[in-house]
Amino acid sequence: MKIWLIGAYGIVSTTAMAGQKAIEKELIDKTGLVSELPQFEGIDKYAPLKIDFGGHEIRPKSNAYEALLEHWEANKHFDKEILEAVREDLEKIVARKGTAINCGEGVRALGKLETLEDENKTLGEIVDQLSKDMKSFADDETVVINTASTEPMIKYEEKYHGSLDGFEKMIEEDKKEYASASMLYAYAALKNRLPYGNFTPSVGTNIPALKELAIENKVPHAGNDGKTGETLVKTTLAPMFAYRNLEVVGWMSYNILGDLDGLVLSFKENKESKVVSKDKVLEKIFGYSPYSITQIEYFPSLVDNKTAFDFVHFKGFMGKLMKFYFIWDAIDAIVAAPLVIDIARFLIFAKKKGMYGVIKELGFFFKSPMDTDEVNTHKQFEILVNWFQRNR
Amino acid sequence: MKIWLIGAYGIVSTTAMAGQKAIEKELIDKTGLVSELPQFEGIDKYAPLKIDFGGHEIRPKSNAYEALLEHWEANKHFDKEILEAVREDLEKIVARKGTAINCGEGVRALGKLETLEDENKTLGEIVDQLSKDMKSFADDETVVINTASTEPMIKYEEKYHGSLDGFEKMIEEDKKEYASASMLYAYAALKNRLPYGNFTPSVGTNIPALKELAIENKVPHAGNDGKTGETLVKTTLAPMFAYRNLEVVGWMSYNILGDLDGLVLSFKENKESKVVSKDKVLEKIFGYSPYSITQIEYFPSLVDNKTAFDFVHFKGFMGKLMKFYFIWDAIDAIVAAPLVIDIARFLIFAKKKGMYGVIKELGFFFKSPMDTDEVNTHKQFEILVNWFQRNR
Amino acid sequence: MKIWLIGAYGIVSTTAMAGQKAIEKELIDKTGLVSELPQFEGIDKYAPLKIDFGGHEIRPKSNAYEALLEHWEANKHFDKEILEAVREDLEKIVARKGTAINCGEGVRALGKLETLEDENKTLGEIVDQLSKDMKSFADDETVVINTASTEPMIKYEEKYHGSLDGFEKMIEEDKKEYASASMLYAYAALKNRLPYGNFTPSVGTNIPALKELAIENKVPHAGNDGKTGETLVKTTLAPMFAYRNLEVVGWMSYNILGDLDGLVLSFKENKESKVVSKDKVLEKIFGYSPYSITQIEYFPSLVDNKTAFDFVHFKGFMGKLMKFYFIWDAIDAIVAAPLVIDIARFLIFAKKKGMYGVIKELGFFFKSPMDTDEVNTHKQFEILVNWFQRNR
Amino acid sequence: MKIWLIGAYGIVSTTAMAGQKAIEKELIDKTGLVSELPQFEGIDKYAPLKIDFGGHEIRPKSNAYEALLEHWEANKHFDKEILEAVREDLEKIVARKGTAINCGEGVRALGKLETLEDENKTLGEIVDQLSKDMKSFADDETVVINTASTEPMIKYEEKYHGSLDGFEKMIEEDKKEYASASMLYAYAALKNRLPYGNFTPSVGTNIPALKELAIENKVPHAGNDGKTGETLVKTTLAPMFAYRNLEVVGWMSYNILGDLDGLVLSFKENKESKVVSKDKVLEKIFGYSPYSITQIEYFPSLVDNKTAFDFVHFKGFMGKLMKFYFIWDAIDAIVAAPLVIDIARFLIFAKKKGMYGVIKELGFFFKSPMDTDEVNTHKQFEILVNWFQRNR
Repeated sequence: MKIWLIGAYGIVSTTAMAGQKAIEKELIDKTGLVSELPQFEGIDKYAPLKIDFGGHEIRPKSNAYEALLEHWEANKHFDKEILEAVREDLEKIVARKGTAINCGEGVRALGKLETLEDENKTLGEIVDQLSKDMKSFADDETVVINTASTEPMIKYEEKYHGSLDGFEKMIEEDKKEYASASMLYAYAALKNRLPYGNFTPSVGTNIPALKELAIENKVPHAGNDGKTGETLVKTTLAPMFAYRNLEVVGWMSYNILGDLDGLVLSFKENKESKVVSKDKVLEKIFGYSPYSITQIEYFPSLVDNKTAFDFVHFKGFMGKLMKFYFIWDAIDAIVAAPLVIDIARFLIFAKKKGMYGVIKELGFFFKSPMDTDEVNTHKQFEILVNWFQRNR
Repeated sequence: MKIWLIGAYGIVSTTAMAGQKAIEKELIDKTGLVSELPQFEGIDKYAPLKIDFGGHEIRPKSNAYEALLEHWEANKHFDKEILEAVREDLEKIVARKGTAINCGEGVRALGKLETLEDENKTLGEIVDQLSKDMKSFADDETVVINTASTEPMIKYEEKYHGSLDGFEKMIEEDKKEYASASMLYAYAALKNRLPYGNFTPSVGTNIPALKELAIENKVPHAGNDGKTGETLVKTTLAPMFAYRNLEVVGWMSYNILGDLDGLVLSFKENKESKVVSKDKVLEKIFGYSPYSITQIEYFPSLVDNKTAFDFVHFKGFMGKLMKFYFIWDAIDAIVAAPLVIDIARFLIFAKKKGMYGVIKELGFFFKSPMDTDEVNTHKQFEILVNWFQRNR
Repeated sequence: MKIWLIGAYGIVSTTAMAGQKAIEKELIDKTGLVSELPQFEGIDKYAPLKIDFGGHEIRPKSNAYEALLEHWEANKHFDKEILEAVREDLEKIVARKGTAINCGEGVRALGKLETLEDENKTLGEIVDQLSKDMKSFADDETVVINTASTEPMIKYEEKYHGSLDGFEKMIEEDKKEYASASMLYAYAALKNRLPYGNFTPSVGTNIPALKELAIENKVPHAGNDGKTGETLVKTTLAPMFAYRNLEVVGWMSYNILGDLDGLVLSFKENKESKVVSKDKVLEKIFGYSPYSITQIEYFPSLVDNKTAFDFVHFKGFMGKLMKFYFIWDAIDAIVAAPLVIDIARFLIFAKKKGMYGVIKELGFFFKSPMDTDEVNTHKQFEILVNWFQRNR
Repeated sequence: MKIWLIGAYGIVSTTAMAGQKAIEKELIDKTGLVSELPQFEGIDKYAPLKIDFGGHEIRPKSNAYEALLEHWEANKHFDKEILEAVREDLEKIVARKGTAINCGEGVRALGKLETLEDENKTLGEIVDQLSKDMKSFADDETVVINTASTEPMIKYEEKYHGSLDGFEKMIEEDKKEYASASMLYAYAALKNRLPYGNFTPSVGTNIPALKELAIENKVPHAGNDGKTGETLVKTTLAPMFAYRNLEVVGWMSYNILGDLDGLVLSFKENKESKVVSKDKVLEKIFGYSPYSITQIEYFPSLVDNKTAFDFVHFKGFMGKLMKFYFIWDAIDAIVAAPLVIDIARFLIFAKKKGMYGVIKELGFFFKSPMDTDEVNTHKQFEILVNWFQRNR
């Protein structure tokens, strides 16, 4: 199978590439890959662990190896031997020039960018180019996954986002102010009938217009925002308080990270999408909204070593207040990269089984799963397992 | 309904009494009571929240109020107004003299004790007395719950513990060295056809002899060891690592507590039961045994404010080691007391539904659930809900 | 001696009053009082632990007991027996109506206020009233301490703040936009030749005009901002990294608190003073500025239980990055209240020894000590001890 | 100058060698070296940062590079480029066969050992050999530092340990049961008039016999037990509670580590020395003994990433209990290695200044500083600075 990555030179994308190639060379085991759990035996038949990569990117680099080397120098997040062993494979992966339209100040701060819109292209021309790039790479077993930096929240505009017709009118009329990069990529993917997974909180396919297109073109898609750190723990732990009828009166979630991701999120408008994405899960689990703080701050020396500090203030029997603290100290790309591969495999499985539209059963992988309110990690896992086992 | 408490003057027992009475007087809400969750609607029909208390005890006190006052002075674990409001009710609860046979040095360190064995009674006479005490209190809706301090592990002896005949022979022959207090209480309960819940890691009904008796007398029972703190969090969180195919390479669990519980556990032989009870859950969840440390130490100034420090060392994609820490800072009696009421209610429900023997579906409440390997808190909760809803 | 408290009905003030009265009644020991350490033997001769209280306040309450009762109900921060025992003493303490001029939105959010400016008084009339109130209470051994909520930062205006003449012109010309409550109180105190301690980050005496007045009137004063929690730990711990030549590359300080203090600080302009006050200490200790985050957020359920989360990222030999975390879980008023008494005693000592102007040696008590760059807690303590022992 | 390391192939020794060589090649900066702080300007004149290494060892390896490579593979505690760059230098460092006499089960668990006592040598012959090895390496600017694994506590025997005569009689009479490796090495060093630093809790020079020899031979020495982690933090922070008259009612210190050090300490008798060494500091700082727990446990996956969990329970004004937690997450060898160099440099400085006997002013570097009760890190640093600046 093949994966087309939006944000192909990012640390998540390039780590996924390196890990996948290392698995193919049998240099590492399959730890971290959900799809390799015994519960998913048989997935291999539909989506074997043999994957080619391509993608779009806006930061000019010669190839995926050069991009990964830079991330690796800053993070040393796996053994150098692996990096060397996959070097040739990654040198062959050269991304196509993408778009960063309305991606905000945060993305512009990433340094020198090369984008299609620099060339004064219209929306129509941009979409055509993205589509052409995907088509030239894709086969029947190709998935598009968005791992690009978080965009600012879009202002939803019924006229252009509410229907496929409206969306295509927006393109035709070149209404750039209503478009964002992630929706253009998503549109191009769905037009090419390529399953699409949105690993970011950016809008992606999450507007009526594109959901309509997915149905029309019979394409499965899933999102949003990979559940990789603090939210993963939170949605695993919060149910415990609910099961025990303990009332959570406050939940503090404080995240710090460096890296390009942290840099982008240090810009207010880019951070907004992320914070909203993280913040709604407690209400969905408890049925009430405890007082909560959800913050993300830039902390450069951590690079990709995203660290989360959580404090839970809860009330027990006879009104007694008690406390719980946790610290999550992990490498974001290491947690995220295998999920990119998992999502792609499950989307191919869905496609081969004739499913299309939002694949809600993949909610396990996302902070803000589309079209479902189930955010309890445990239930999401059961749903995923049942869905796969019922259909395989 | 009625609850007969073994260790009636302990902090868990007296807090349960005070909380229950405060609920009856509508002074507090029902936070902390699992059985009051919407999922268990209808339990009231079988086991209304209107409960009388009695019990056995070995520390000489005039009544439950005097005992609770002492715990309260040390812990101030709820508002003094509540204590005053339930004073009269608790003053009426006077425990009967119990047994501490083979309860170890830890229990002897509790200070002046008054026990049946002090009076040179034989095992048969002790059991008769315990049984008579229970019978004089009990009605058809009475449950016995063991909340007494942790006993040392017994040396299992097939001859006396392996069958009901053997057990009764042990009593007859007055083989005190093979008996322990918790099994004598449990025997007395089952003989009186009273459902029995073991909230401690002591042996209780957990020997073939007493399981046989429960079947023969058609009595439901459940245990062992209330899952109230660090183990609750551990069995909620550990599945997350499993679901994500992350390998846990080490798990440190370090618990400190003061109080009589802490004092008893500061004695090596008493601690042993507890540590064993806490230590097996990881293997059951992961299917492999990560390196693990489970320790409990006495820390007097915390009194009942049991604090747990956990560190999880886990391996992700490409072999990267990452870290997770948590601190649990709660009042043990506050977390435990409502569960005593929950377990009693569910046992009455089971009894009224004609169930008997080990009620495995109550595993949610225990660290070492009898006759099941399911320790995942999420699954245990689902099992409990399904069991109740299927049978109500 | 006597203490006149600005913000007399706040939790710090009323807790100080209750604690002092409880000491006088020998109900509690002297834990928490720095001035009672053996190093300060002899202070009693100058400033005995027998103190009368008065003060200004803007929240209408009948007396200090009523105010404290409200704080106590929310915090239960000491035994109710003590509260009852000092009730009569505190009922006698009735604050005079104060000013909240330019205290910002945060202070206005405290609810119904009664201030002198409501009565359309000019600056001159306000100052006269404040001064008259102080004079009617004070004797030769009276100190004024500011514990009122944090004001927004003032815009420094050389013309009115740069000299005593300018300051008095501001009052005369009723230039309210340049005044803030804390500087008016401070002016009134110094005019009455009363030593003044600023326990808050508000401006107080920290402008050239008032420093000039202190010299002219020969009054000792000290400030700013009581060092009570996270900053206390930070300034104790940071030197360790310096001593060991370990480079701190990042320091995160995240504070949460509820209470009126937290509410006031949840307003941006009021928070600013506080954050600036906390943020400069690292540079002073290290001689370089590590990347740092200093945030304070409102977390209502904690009330006065101010909790701080710190993360230190530091580099050691051969460039290796390492980590340190701490959590401070304390009751702010409990840490702060005895320092109010300490500062007052040391200011009386200073006055009796003929010292005036900024008493830099009291820097130990403050987050932003005036006229000194020494913020290392250890050195500050040595300086305090040496100063006292040299002069006593 | 030169350093002779006891335990030359351990991770602390080999990391010190690699770091020193990397400094000489200007590959790394001097972070972590206390002696390079501005306060110690001028040390270079006495003890330039140009150091040759030799030592004794009991684990058979070809050279220091081979030993370090093994530690590095397990820890990756610095950049591989540095390892490669110093490879040749370290390959030239070949340790001499040492002794592990009475080093306990823990040391025997290290695997295949080669020791002088295996060759049926008498104590006299062992000491002669150790001495000869040192002499053949040493010049006038050579220091011996003990970094070998922790020995069990010796049973102090006045007859043999109480005087130099007795000690030499012990050797003469070959009373092996009274000897331990560290004292034999220390004796050999002092006989050769080489300054000796004991970086471990083993006995080293810490018996009257060897203190006598140091005086007689006019050799400076210092110890014991490098203050590298949790104790460093503890002795920095504990004074804060003392300065503020806050009463510490309990202090929990829980340490986990892997590596050979952890393995050795997982043996009860070896652990004992370590725990005693760590446990006395609180009493020295507070003047009273709070309830305290000090534990060290083996946690293999951490390797040299020693992690400490501390909890401080303290009482403030009006008797209120409050809490403080910290987590120290560092690489032990990275913190320790530069101190080995620092201690050696300061001992050479002492020697050149004609000082001998215990150099108490080096207490800053040790958990159990000899001949002084000052364990407050701040004061120790001041003492060190003053001593150096007064004498330089």
